[in-house]
Amino acid sequence: MITVQEAEQIINRHTIQLQSEEVPLQQAAGRILEEQVLADRDFPPFNRVTMDGIAVKFSDLENGIKVFNIAGIQAAGVAPMSIDQPGQALEVMTGAVMPEGTDTVIPYELISISENDKKATVVEALTTKGKNVHYKGSDRPQGSVILKSGTVIGAAEIGVAATVGKSTLSVRKAPKVAIVSTGDELVPIDQNPLPHQIRSSNAATLVTCLKDWAIEPGVYHLGDDLQGTTSTLKSLIDTYQILILSGGVSKGKFDYVPQALGSIQVKKDFHRIKQRPGKPLWFGTHESGTIVFAFPGNPVSSFMCFHRYLKPWLQRCMGLSVPVMQAVLTDTIYFKPALTYFAQVKISLEKGILYAQPVEGHGSGDLANLADADGFIELPAAKTRFLKGENYPIYPFRSKI
Amino acid sequence: MITVQEAEQIINRHTIQLQSEEVPLQQAAGRILEEQVLADRDFPPFNRVTMDGIAVKFSDLENGIKVFNIAGIQAAGVAPMSIDQPGQALEVMTGAVMPEGTDTVIPYELISISENDKKATVVEALTTKGKNVHYKGSDRPQGSVILKSGTVIGAAEIGVAATVGKSTLSVRKAPKVAIVSTGDELVPIDQNPLPHQIRSSNAATLVTCLKDWAIEPGVYHLGDDLQGTTSTLKSLIDTYQILILSGGVSKGKFDYVPQALGSIQVKKDFHRIKQRPGKPLWFGTHESGTIVFAFPGNPVSSFMCFHRYLKPWLQRCMGLSVPVMQAVLTDTIYFKPALTYFAQVKISLEKGILYAQPVEGHGSGDLANLADADGFIELPAAKTRFLKGENYPIYPFRSKI
Repeated sequence: MITVQEAEQIINRHTIQLQSEEVPLQQAAGRILEEQVLADRDFPPFNRVTMDGIAVKFSDLENGIKVFNIAGIQAAGVAPMSIDQPGQALEVMTGAVMPEGTDTVIPYELISISENDKKATVVEALTTKGKNVHYKGSDRPQGSVILKSGTVIGAAEIGVAATVGKSTLSVRKAPKVAIVSTGDELVPIDQNPLPHQIRSSNAATLVTCLKDWAIEPGVYHLGDDLQGTTSTLKSLIDTYQILILSGGVSKGKFDYVPQALGSIQVKKDFHRIKQRPGKPLWFGTHESGTIVFAFPGNPVSSFMCFHRYLKPWLQRCMGLSVPVMQAVLTDTIYFKPALTYFAQVKISLEKGILYAQPVEGHGSGDLANLADADGFIELPAAKTRFLKGENYPIYPFRSKI
Repeated sequence: MITVQEAEQIINRHTIQLQSEEVPLQQAAGRILEEQVLADRDFPPFNRVTMDGIAVKFSDLENGIKVFNIAGIQAAGVAPMSIDQPGQALEVMTGAVMPEGTDTVIPYELISISENDKKATVVEALTTKGKNVHYKGSDRPQGSVILKSGTVIGAAEIGVAATVGKSTLSVRKAPKVAIVSTGDELVPIDQNPLPHQIRSSNAATLVTCLKDWAIEPGVYHLGDDLQGTTSTLKSLIDTYQILILSGGVSKGKFDYVPQALGSIQVKKDFHRIKQRPGKPLWFGTHESGTIVFAFPGNPVSSFMCFHRYLKPWLQRCMGLSVPVMQAVLTDTIYFKPALTYFAQVKISLEKGILYAQPVEGHGSGDLANLADADGFIELPAAKTRFLKGENYPIYPFRSKI
């Protein structure tokens, strides 16, 4: 058995290369950008009016002019008009181009307009030339990088890409993943199990977990049969980049997974970790590059192994940084075995502090307990008492902020 | 103009009723559960073996028996076998039913097995009856609520629902939403704008924001034309439960939105909030029940208004609690105007504390700036100095944990 840290190091030595693919802009949310997005022109693309009011030449104000003749209206989306006489002004609307011959906008709030004779009287003086104008190129000059490669694409990035005319984006391609549940005791969700059977739930859970990464896995089931297990795994190794197995890795007589994987040249990098839950985790690599995570069949163990090992590894494969998050324990936990303990916790944020509150469990096999929790807190093997107020790493499985 | 708090109170008085709908289990992630999910049988459904080893009668151990005759193997997924003689045992596999006549599992680690004569010798004694057995119904008795109505469905809940055979779930139905951008200056993403035009980006951003709520909005564009605006809005009011407009709510001559909405009996609940950005926000209600949020056209303002007003309101409509999150400022911010200031911040978590670091902006109109930020921090109008180390509410637009 190895430690949690050793397991993590081994797994992280085996990140895989992912290709890129072009997707429509509206399908790019949540994906990792695989190109630099550049400003296709200056931003703003013209000297842009930022307040509704009148556009004037500031020197007119300096020369004491207080009443302006309104020569017309410069609407947004219309080519620039122009003025060339002292004392002339144009009404301008937010988003419009600054008319030629003007340099300053006086907002409606600071003028009074006589609609009869089309005159605007300045009620309150402006002191700065260029006021209420957003200058061409002042945000981003043409050609500058406005979205960096490697960015996680969110709603803001979709807006930025739209602005520069990107109706498709190059994103990191999702890996090809197979989820393989094992065990004769499992029946499909829509069947009624016999008294000694249970419904398969790990595959459904893992499919959901992978959705965040735009992964649409193949889903398979294997009975407790060495020959069938071996031949199916062999064909899956050829087809997929990542195999996620659940079950069949304990010490049971029918736990054929390690043996089957060995016989098809999947190199075992480790089997069993000093942790609870999730002790039987098996990890290996095939010379084709396919990575195999064989999780325990226990639903809580499998869920924990996904969040502690597979998810951060996947983030690394995607080129993302993976900061370790910590939270403050709200209650003291005792745990005696010399194993790293992943306790289920409810996570809350109060006045800027992230708290982890242990959830009373019905036992590690109780999947329903996870519905009351938000994540796992990692309590190191070296200690037995984890005090209220201490910080420990957390692995949330629900987004809290 | 009203305050941020007044605006929020008015908006929250107008939550809408949403129906429920039945969706396939794998499409239920991220939705709000609209039913109680019950345990369809006891969990575990049988006395379940939790370690690979041998099942024995504990009284045999108490009577000093150290060597057991192995009568067979009880695999997982197989109907229970039985023993009836003192000194008999059955090999048992994790997940199997406890054989009849046994009550305790001795794991392989504590015995040595002679395969020749099928005998197991106890190397280390067990002291507790019932060890390594997970008793029928000990997690959840049949009929107990295992998922509460109102729960946000995540991967764990999908697994729980699968376990009890729910291949569909009743969830809160997404509202019918129309996104309506306005303004003659806007051209579609895939067109090359003239020098005085810009590409439409708010609709793409808002579509992405709404995806988290399983909302697939209709998307419309209106030119700066009172009659067209009025007639289109009238038909949208009849079709949709929520209208999200962007642009056309400032003081400009062609800002027809408030006038058009008024003429089709959308009651204005407020217009303009003492805030930056987002001052021109307009909110109203129609007697049909349709709610209208009219956001400013500025992309940053529109994005802020979504996260500060519309998203929490939507969460309330979905029946979710909406806790106010806070983060600790990493730098002092000065802001003089008597407005609530929503500063863009980068959010990070360090040793259990959530920090908000102000992002140097190129100006509030600079959408690309949002790519460097994770959320807005709300700095109240009553103060002008917001000190490093102080807590303020945050509105993240990127999931950080």
